[in-house]
Amino acid sequence: MCRWLAYSGEAIHPALLILEPRHSLVAQSLNSPLGAETVNGDGFGVGWYPSTDALMPEPALFHSIEPAWHDENLRELTQAIDSPLFFSHVRAAAGPPIQQTNCHPFRHGRWMFMHNGVIAHAPRLRRDLMMALDPELFPLVHGTTDSEVVFYLAITYGLQEDPVAGLGRALRHVEEIAEAHGVRDVVQGTFAVSDGETIWAFRYSSMHKSRTLYYSVDMPTLQEMYPEVDRLRLFGARARVVVSEPLTDLPGAFVEVPESTVVTIDAGGGYREAPFLRDDAA
Amino acid sequence: MCRWLAYSGEAIHPALLILEPRHSLVAQSLNSPLGAETVNGDGFGVGWYPSTDALMPEPALFHSIEPAWHDENLRELTQAIDSPLFFSHVRAAAGPPIQQTNCHPFRHGRWMFMHNGVIAHAPRLRRDLMMALDPELFPLVHGTTDSEVVFYLAITYGLQEDPVAGLGRALRHVEEIAEAHGVRDVVQGTFAVSDGETIWAFRYSSMHKSRTLYYSVDMPTLQEMYPEVDRLRLFGARARVVVSEPLTDLPGAFVEVPESTVVTIDAGGGYREAPFLRDDAA
Amino acid sequence: MCRWLAYSGEAIHPALLILEPRHSLVAQSLNSPLGAETVNGDGFGVGWYPSTDALMPEPALFHSIEPAWHDENLRELTQAIDSPLFFSHVRAAAGPPIQQTNCHPFRHGRWMFMHNGVIAHAPRLRRDLMMALDPELFPLVHGTTDSEVVFYLAITYGLQEDPVAGLGRALRHVEEIAEAHGVRDVVQGTFAVSDGETIWAFRYSSMHKSRTLYYSVDMPTLQEMYPEVDRLRLFGARARVVVSEPLTDLPGAFVEVPESTVVTIDAGGGYREAPFLRDDAA
Amino acid sequence: MCRWLAYSGEAIHPALLILEPRHSLVAQSLNSPLGAETVNGDGFGVGWYPSTDALMPEPALFHSIEPAWHDENLRELTQAIDSPLFFSHVRAAAGPPIQQTNCHPFRHGRWMFMHNGVIAHAPRLRRDLMMALDPELFPLVHGTTDSEVVFYLAITYGLQEDPVAGLGRALRHVEEIAEAHGVRDVVQGTFAVSDGETIWAFRYSSMHKSRTLYYSVDMPTLQEMYPEVDRLRLFGARARVVVSEPLTDLPGAFVEVPESTVVTIDAGGGYREAPFLRDDAA
Repeated sequence: MCRWLAYSGEAIHPALLILEPRHSLVAQSLNSPLGAETVNGDGFGVGWYPSTDALMPEPALFHSIEPAWHDENLRELTQAIDSPLFFSHVRAAAGPPIQQTNCHPFRHGRWMFMHNGVIAHAPRLRRDLMMALDPELFPLVHGTTDSEVVFYLAITYGLQEDPVAGLGRALRHVEEIAEAHGVRDVVQGTFAVSDGETIWAFRYSSMHKSRTLYYSVDMPTLQEMYPEVDRLRLFGARARVVVSEPLTDLPGAFVEVPESTVVTIDAGGGYREAPFLRDDAA
Repeated sequence: MCRWLAYSGEAIHPALLILEPRHSLVAQSLNSPLGAETVNGDGFGVGWYPSTDALMPEPALFHSIEPAWHDENLRELTQAIDSPLFFSHVRAAAGPPIQQTNCHPFRHGRWMFMHNGVIAHAPRLRRDLMMALDPELFPLVHGTTDSEVVFYLAITYGLQEDPVAGLGRALRHVEEIAEAHGVRDVVQGTFAVSDGETIWAFRYSSMHKSRTLYYSVDMPTLQEMYPEVDRLRLFGARARVVVSEPLTDLPGAFVEVPESTVVTIDAGGGYREAPFLRDDAA
Repeated sequence: MCRWLAYSGEAIHPALLILEPRHSLVAQSLNSPLGAETVNGDGFGVGWYPSTDALMPEPALFHSIEPAWHDENLRELTQAIDSPLFFSHVRAAAGPPIQQTNCHPFRHGRWMFMHNGVIAHAPRLRRDLMMALDPELFPLVHGTTDSEVVFYLAITYGLQEDPVAGLGRALRHVEEIAEAHGVRDVVQGTFAVSDGETIWAFRYSSMHKSRTLYYSVDMPTLQEMYPEVDRLRLFGARARVVVSEPLTDLPGAFVEVPESTVVTIDAGGGYREAPFLRDDAA
Repeated sequence: MCRWLAYSGEAIHPALLILEPRHSLVAQSLNSPLGAETVNGDGFGVGWYPSTDALMPEPALFHSIEPAWHDENLRELTQAIDSPLFFSHVRAAAGPPIQQTNCHPFRHGRWMFMHNGVIAHAPRLRRDLMMALDPELFPLVHGTTDSEVVFYLAITYGLQEDPVAGLGRALRHVEEIAEAHGVRDVVQGTFAVSDGETIWAFRYSSMHKSRTLYYSVDMPTLQEMYPEVDRLRLFGARARVVVSEPLTDLPGAFVEVPESTVVTIDAGGGYREAPFLRDDAA
């Protein structure tokens, strides 16, 4: 239902990944070969941790309801700013309206979150999901997507202390609520979370047949594989991307994340995988 | 926090009231002498019952996040359509974001609703207000205004059977929830409701010091008072307006609705007043 | 570069053609099998002659920079209004920015105009094209598309007296200007023009290999061909559509307009074809 | 018809001037005491030279058609970026439509330009003004404001070599064209130009009764005048602002630029004044 990209590494201009590659996120907004939808034209967002001290401790957000492919502000912004860690997301709306408050990434304090996929029958479950939130968080839900509710449910379950456990418990709770309503295969998607230092990326669905997710191999290896590709020299040794589908056609540049897996990218570019909600349910 | 207008009578082009008068609703969007805010530039809406059979049984809505004063679509639309009963609203946002789902009027089946004013400390009360809704209605709240929640709370309390009783009970419930949170003087505003036949307009606040509300005197009388005003001949004998502040400077054309009052305009142009929540609470 | 639809006949709700058919114009905005681009998400427009007396003598316009596929106002409007003659257009921008002034249809007095296609190297030719306009018309060009300039050039050449001759001379002049700049195959497209009574639709390109264009067979014949298709009974005997590509998969319902041809649809539903700029010139 | 602000000095977050002061540019967008219009809600723009190397040599632009006062992206952006030289502009549209291509500042290569004021009877003069442009520049006029045409006319007249002479000749040419059309008092306004190093700001009108313009006194002096104002310590010694009206009520902080004057702010914060088009001509 969407496409997203998360970058960590040396500070770069986000346009290097969002605009310029053959299958950049903007290119995917108009034509996504691996997506559930071909077109992701229902708004977009960029969230970035500034590389220099910003007035605000949080990541900065740029949200727009226009399609990404012709958005002038997106072109300007992603060429002008630089950031060592940013998220970007292009949306194909399943139901909730096209408005900035429904654009990913979402933010809470230093934390960012984005999602590709769906909570099945979300309108039917919405009341119970909202009731499950910490009451303090309830008024902070500004939009009407299922994704944002999952984010705040994960915060309710401790995402800020332990993102993997927090999101895991939240998704289990979603599955419990769905079961009570007779909804099967409720969770579908890939999720990204960051605190500005680390990226956690999740590939998970209740039916264990999730939307695609890829990570880039480490940059020194990639540069050695393709010494003739000048573009790769624009990136530093710590550069790492997690993305819904490969940004280029270079064989071996992107590797698929396994089903029911959480990926961790640390500030040094290190990549780790672990099982996520693989066994018994709820 | 907003300005609104409701018309009932012979079918007219809404531009006659929304665009053309000296103090038209669009003029009020840029400069509202009697408003809590001078500028009401945070989106607008028009809701109209078509004069000919439409494909849908409901009133049609046009919502925009642009200021009304330079909106080309508003000019086109209100000159092209005609309607025997329409609402229009210009918004000054108190807090909830500028998005179409936060633009009035709101609609539920054949019913329309709009509001000028505020529910004090709405974010703090929001969870309890949402919990008070009929669970079937919960997923129909598409925006994040306090006004829309009041509408669905009134539906929960029977607005479709008895609008005066339904809104009355809803506002009393809001006051009870507020009291439990230590919030005083919670309700402020004027409200308009219609089913396509009748308009109910309410002036009420918990502190009994409400936003202004006016109604137009009956058209034959007005035409007799001002035989030299050609514009008045554009209106039929049943034409009647309820509006946040007078549309013209003609003395006697608009009369203030008393505090804590509900006004009823029937399809024949008849005007009635009754006390609304004047005495004992809930 | 776009898709469009023109209707003439008994007054209908435009949604019947814009929203509802299997390959409605809105469906084509997201997925156009025969278009030069698959996605036409760069704004849209509807222009309609109201079926009842409107305040203004001109057709009314609704223009939006949002993609058509999720636009709520488009859904509301096209179900609420009715019209005996309307145009609708979904845009895939070739270069000029996404703004309401670049949305089709364009209007001049009672006349409407829309275009699918392109003037090759339009920026290089723009100054000479603009200079060729009647100086009185120069300040009326509000947008920056090549299409709008062609419209005003056709008016300069007498479109309001003779649409076929006016557009013919304008396109010939475009070809002359292009030749002076060394630009070949300059005109590409299909064009629609109306004065509120008659529709003229043109399929033409300098290289005589033009974008597709179709017309619907006369409605009594179509209803006889498909007596089991209930939807067809929603239309009257004079209903006729000209459209970039067929709205349905019903064999025989839509017929291709030949290359270099002008089609005339009169108010009675009559269809005529004539050659358009078929011989050598320019 | 607008309000604008230009900053030069140590790199700062633009929010320090655009959002935070008592009479910030955003505050002026809703309520401008000295403006020709009280409300400047018809879009806005920010143009900034990035403080770190950007992918593009030009200043970056952010343009929006929303009112500035509730724009979330403006808040995010101006707190996240920092810049040693930026422009910002809030618009009150005189006639040209509300679209991003009509938002200031405008850009050509490394050059930025913005304008508050009006070219009288611009539609009548538009053809002759456009004809006066270097033909190479003609297709670069993307919007429909008189301001943008003045910018390209100044470039035609050598703004990039000598901004004062270039704009001077352009305005004289505008006055000549106006005279030929019988239009008097044609130029009205204040203008700002920069190449990323220096700011040139102009206060000029044909009738020598121009819109207001102010500059801030040098920061060390201001900090000495108001040692108790903590906010002033956020600025460096080279900080300097030119602005349509004062940002604060601190007496002596802002000084009016004289009529028919050009102001130069160099990268070191130095301020110079010179007469501009003071004598008779044209």
